[in-house]
Amino acid sequence: MPRWSDTRLQQLFGVEHPIVQGGMIWNSGAKLAAAVSNAGGLGLVGAGSMRPDVFREHVRKVRDLTTRPFGVNLPLLYPHTAECLDIALAEGIRIFFTSAGSPKKVVGRLKDAGAVVVHVVATPELAVKCEQAGCDAVVCEGFEAGGHNGREEITTLVLVPECVRAVSIPVIAAGGIATGAQLVAALALGAAGVQVGSRFAITQESSGHAAFKQAVVAAGAGDTHLVLKSQVPVRLLRNAFRDRITLLEARGATRDELAAELGHGRARQGMHEGDLAEGELEIGQVAGLIDDVPTVAEVMRRLLDDADVVLSRLAGGTGQAPAGPAC
Amino acid sequence: MPRWSDTRLQQLFGVEHPIVQGGMIWNSGAKLAAAVSNAGGLGLVGAGSMRPDVFREHVRKVRDLTTRPFGVNLPLLYPHTAECLDIALAEGIRIFFTSAGSPKKVVGRLKDAGAVVVHVVATPELAVKCEQAGCDAVVCEGFEAGGHNGREEITTLVLVPECVRAVSIPVIAAGGIATGAQLVAALALGAAGVQVGSRFAITQESSGHAAFKQAVVAAGAGDTHLVLKSQVPVRLLRNAFRDRITLLEARGATRDELAAELGHGRARQGMHEGDLAEGELEIGQVAGLIDDVPTVAEVMRRLLDDADVVLSRLAGGTGQAPAGPAC
Repeated sequence: MPRWSDTRLQQLFGVEHPIVQGGMIWNSGAKLAAAVSNAGGLGLVGAGSMRPDVFREHVRKVRDLTTRPFGVNLPLLYPHTAECLDIALAEGIRIFFTSAGSPKKVVGRLKDAGAVVVHVVATPELAVKCEQAGCDAVVCEGFEAGGHNGREEITTLVLVPECVRAVSIPVIAAGGIATGAQLVAALALGAAGVQVGSRFAITQESSGHAAFKQAVVAAGAGDTHLVLKSQVPVRLLRNAFRDRITLLEARGATRDELAAELGHGRARQGMHEGDLAEGELEIGQVAGLIDDVPTVAEVMRRLLDDADVVLSRLAGGTGQAPAGPAC
Repeated sequence: MPRWSDTRLQQLFGVEHPIVQGGMIWNSGAKLAAAVSNAGGLGLVGAGSMRPDVFREHVRKVRDLTTRPFGVNLPLLYPHTAECLDIALAEGIRIFFTSAGSPKKVVGRLKDAGAVVVHVVATPELAVKCEQAGCDAVVCEGFEAGGHNGREEITTLVLVPECVRAVSIPVIAAGGIATGAQLVAALALGAAGVQVGSRFAITQESSGHAAFKQAVVAAGAGDTHLVLKSQVPVRLLRNAFRDRITLLEARGATRDELAAELGHGRARQGMHEGDLAEGELEIGQVAGLIDDVPTVAEVMRRLLDDADVVLSRLAGGTGQAPAGPAC
């Protein structure tokens, strides 16, 4: 039995497995991206928390660490996007994941340069716009995902089939995927593959702070919540900062009051500096299924091995009740 | 290839397919429950919107319409629960789904009567309590489900594996399941089967108002939202009533103000009487995937046929990109 019945992503990116590592601020530097690509997935350098010179340095460093395909993630609302896009093209990058904004502005230029362009969406309507704009694929990211998120709150289980029937380009499922069983579930929904964020954030190669990683290991599924819906919705692990935001929101605080409480640099403070009480700790609901800090190679091995077990079970192999997944 | 590799639910309920119809107020009367059981699934009479005498009438009517197994759904916080439980036992019902409250109070009596008891949960912690209390299975219902919902907002894609690893009893996945692909996704996650609500609510045999059914057919995935989180969270289709609640919540309205706006009988007004502007229209995010009002037999046929196609694709059958699902 072939492991993958659908090989569109493998062909699109030139990778072995249809597993993309999410571009996550303060977590996905050169070391993580290279490790994922070396393990047969697609690593992405996340530009969202990097100054342009730091971004260039990380892109170059990935080249030193792997000969396999990798890409970059550029949030389009980020102030240095144009400069980072120029740097990436000049450095020979030809796989671009874009998010947070309209892909229309950049897709023409990237396609002219021969690049593969994938945009992250949270609704089927935006997936259709991406296809019309010329994107090669879409990442469909559900409500359960960590970090910034859509206002419509559509979950991965609903969003993926909605997008699969709305567009012809490959759909990459994201949000809530940290185990082989969740990977197979995404494939069942019609996704060509998955983008895995939180599980790769909590690895040895991720650049997140050790205290942040341990906080995620200790967390349960109900410990993350989507807050700041009147600003840009973001899923955060519970801490003193998030509790104050929740209280402010419950009493109908204005956008200005919330912005004042939020301040600046909270994501850096939480995930990079390890301030567990006052920083933003961006992680998905799968935090509850994350119980250790393994290497990327180990995460990839578990994803693939567990997916094989699940595929075999679905094919009528055992009739056994499944064991609880490790991830 | 056997259709189902896991047959725990078939054994538990004596049914052909591991597909349970959700007990939904104002929708799941005798006609719907009997149609689902006749199609090889497990039909449930939902007591939540019935006076005890009406409930007895519906239970008796199912017996006239099918010789196959069926059950009842009893919300434990409902004022007539004790009386309905007595009626169901007296009428020979031996399959009980309970929700909204602690199963501890009733499970002993039901087990003593030789009944199968299944409780609906939204967290792995409650799933564990159900197993300890003696429940035979749990329905794990995610954030995307219609109607009343958990405060933790855990989605089906995360909740099901969380519960599968927390308990040994069978886990029935609910929330976001209206297509064969979603059914297979649930099985991949380790569920023994699924509970389908919204898709069965929008059938010819459901007792919901025709205008309510048409409103769901017209809706997209982003048109439902979870509101009234400070009371009992409930997922509703957008209308004038829900818009007012959303505005009140955004300005930090008190519980009393919200309760006053909610008033009484909104669910009846919306789903039974068809007041699309001022009633509560309880439906899941899968509303976006529901495009017609077929018979229950047709829904079951689609679920099973589409699941077969997906299982065959996952087994390496085609390598084709999947077509968009009908449901």
